[in-house]
Amino acid sequence: MSFTVEHQSGQARVGRIVTAHSVIETPVFMPVGTNGVVKAMMAEQVASLGAQIILGNSYHLYLRPGLEVLREAGGLHRFAGWERSILTDSGGFQVFSLQKLSRLSEEGVAFQSHIDGSRHFFTPELVMEIQGVIGSDIAMVLDDCPALPATPERLAASVTRSLAWAERAIRCERPAHQALFGIVQGGLDLSLRLRHLEALAAMPFDGLAIGGLSVGEPPAEMHAMCRALAPQMPAERPRYLMGVGTPWDLVACAGAGVDMFDCVLPTRNARMGTVYTRDGERINIRNAVHRGAMAPLDSRCDCYACRHLSRAYLRHLFVAKEITGVVLLTLHNLSFYLWLMGEIRRAIRGGTLAELEARFAPQQREGEGQDG
Amino acid sequence: MSFTVEHQSGQARVGRIVTAHSVIETPVFMPVGTNGVVKAMMAEQVASLGAQIILGNSYHLYLRPGLEVLREAGGLHRFAGWERSILTDSGGFQVFSLQKLSRLSEEGVAFQSHIDGSRHFFTPELVMEIQGVIGSDIAMVLDDCPALPATPERLAASVTRSLAWAERAIRCERPAHQALFGIVQGGLDLSLRLRHLEALAAMPFDGLAIGGLSVGEPPAEMHAMCRALAPQMPAERPRYLMGVGTPWDLVACAGAGVDMFDCVLPTRNARMGTVYTRDGERINIRNAVHRGAMAPLDSRCDCYACRHLSRAYLRHLFVAKEITGVVLLTLHNLSFYLWLMGEIRRAIRGGTLAELEARFAPQQREGEGQDG
Repeated sequence: MSFTVEHQSGQARVGRIVTAHSVIETPVFMPVGTNGVVKAMMAEQVASLGAQIILGNSYHLYLRPGLEVLREAGGLHRFAGWERSILTDSGGFQVFSLQKLSRLSEEGVAFQSHIDGSRHFFTPELVMEIQGVIGSDIAMVLDDCPALPATPERLAASVTRSLAWAERAIRCERPAHQALFGIVQGGLDLSLRLRHLEALAAMPFDGLAIGGLSVGEPPAEMHAMCRALAPQMPAERPRYLMGVGTPWDLVACAGAGVDMFDCVLPTRNARMGTVYTRDGERINIRNAVHRGAMAPLDSRCDCYACRHLSRAYLRHLFVAKEITGVVLLTLHNLSFYLWLMGEIRRAIRGGTLAELEARFAPQQREGEGQDG
Repeated sequence: MSFTVEHQSGQARVGRIVTAHSVIETPVFMPVGTNGVVKAMMAEQVASLGAQIILGNSYHLYLRPGLEVLREAGGLHRFAGWERSILTDSGGFQVFSLQKLSRLSEEGVAFQSHIDGSRHFFTPELVMEIQGVIGSDIAMVLDDCPALPATPERLAASVTRSLAWAERAIRCERPAHQALFGIVQGGLDLSLRLRHLEALAAMPFDGLAIGGLSVGEPPAEMHAMCRALAPQMPAERPRYLMGVGTPWDLVACAGAGVDMFDCVLPTRNARMGTVYTRDGERINIRNAVHRGAMAPLDSRCDCYACRHLSRAYLRHLFVAKEITGVVLLTLHNLSFYLWLMGEIRRAIRGGTLAELEARFAPQQREGEGQDG
């Protein structure tokens, strides 16, 4: 994997990641494909929207379909029919957020499957093996990801443990094409985060991620943490803000120097009937006001739904509980997110990021987060 | 609408229907789009599979989105973004099958909405008005469609009433491009059906349909009725067997001289994980035997799922309850049905229909039927 910064404006930068599978312009938004599929999408649709990288989830894929099937398939790219890049989350977030009974030790974390209650034990080494079988282009280290708010002791312990695990992860063998990112923890304690960052930056990771944000704290605090932290991250390596975020978050944090994002919001909101427009609006298609609305969702969007269909028809599909409604809104929201990233890159190059942020800042904040 | 028979072999025939919206090769299978959408499909996908005509349902579309919205949209073609032909069922079957409390009179049928319990009254005239607003290329008369088994008295009454309603329907104004089909009732009583047919054939309908079959009777009886009835239907007009059927039904009844079919089986079965193959097999993708199966559903099928994905991946999507699994299996099953119709047309031209029937006859019969 290579990374080149092509343009910098303030802290914001435009760059390019090249993996064995695709060329990725940054700042990039990665659609989430937890189970090896971007929900409601076929791989060819995600590709046709222009996505060059999607996310997979080590925790979910380890439980289902399991390593044996993934190994037999020759990895996730072939299994899912997705020829471009894949980043896999380590599963740390899922182990801590989906399991009430996960038990931490220095060795790793014991948990029960959210599917069938079966018992498992994740170590930094096992998580690297899982990601090796998946064959992702970018792997993430196993981290200890506490929910916020957390006590100072809990935060400090998570940093110490995550650092020890990162050292074990980076010593593991991995596929020749696979890059590995470290993850900075530390909650909203900047000095703790900077200490963690300094230690991780000294290690030969291909990129560094900010983990443990967007887990319930106010957006202003999250943005402030990014503005303080991202510029301290090594400039020559990609910076990845995990599980973020709303359109506003993307513009604001790209402005802080973040290069990579992922979030379930565009796909999850589509399933709830919520769509974004280029004006910075958020619309719920179920609202009765759309009952006879013959205009498209967004007249400036060129997705299939906006080119061919009215709000009234999309509302009809939702009210009638037609799967196609979810498909069309997912297509639109992903199209919007990928368009927005293009706008962000253009605005960074043109020095107009503040204006773009103004367009998306006023909108209501909602419950986003890393994938559950 | 025009209809031309291009080739006849025994009772079977290959022909061509031309509407204002498309050219339809017969025998044709029409995917069902009850609510103005083929379930789980985008219109462009259905078109890309080669479908030239889909079904809409007057009953469902009248209740939701309702005539006001459909009128505002300029009809169903524009509302649904479907540029090819549409046939609309009259709603007779739905009124009688979805409502426990429908009340028949000479004037029409009173029923309560299955959605909200609201009270409505369908007359032959209102059903023509609904189909006029929808703007379908082929409209169907309102008929009295009794469940089988039915008493001789009930069957005779349904024929008398359906005939009176057909006479009222054909006197209604309708859009210039819209054809109208009559519907033959009479259950499994051939002489009653022939009497109904004779009366309908004397009226200037553009085509005639066999209604009230595939409602619970054994397949052999249904096929026998088609073999007896279809050849008696006017040769110069299309013959439409409503709500049928399995692959075996399609081959057998095309052999009896039927030109048009519709059925929810390919889409409904896809939602249950059941898929068809060109060998005449039926597979349930949830079966554990497919857990590590890296072969496609059908190596001879050229649908997206079969070209790019394994049974193991499709099973994984189903087990993980991913919407995309339903989308991909629907795409495959529709692709199979449309392929089968091409094979039927080719076999009729080549005189090999009996061999094709043998391939699909042995498979297990299942509960198919008109759309609910």
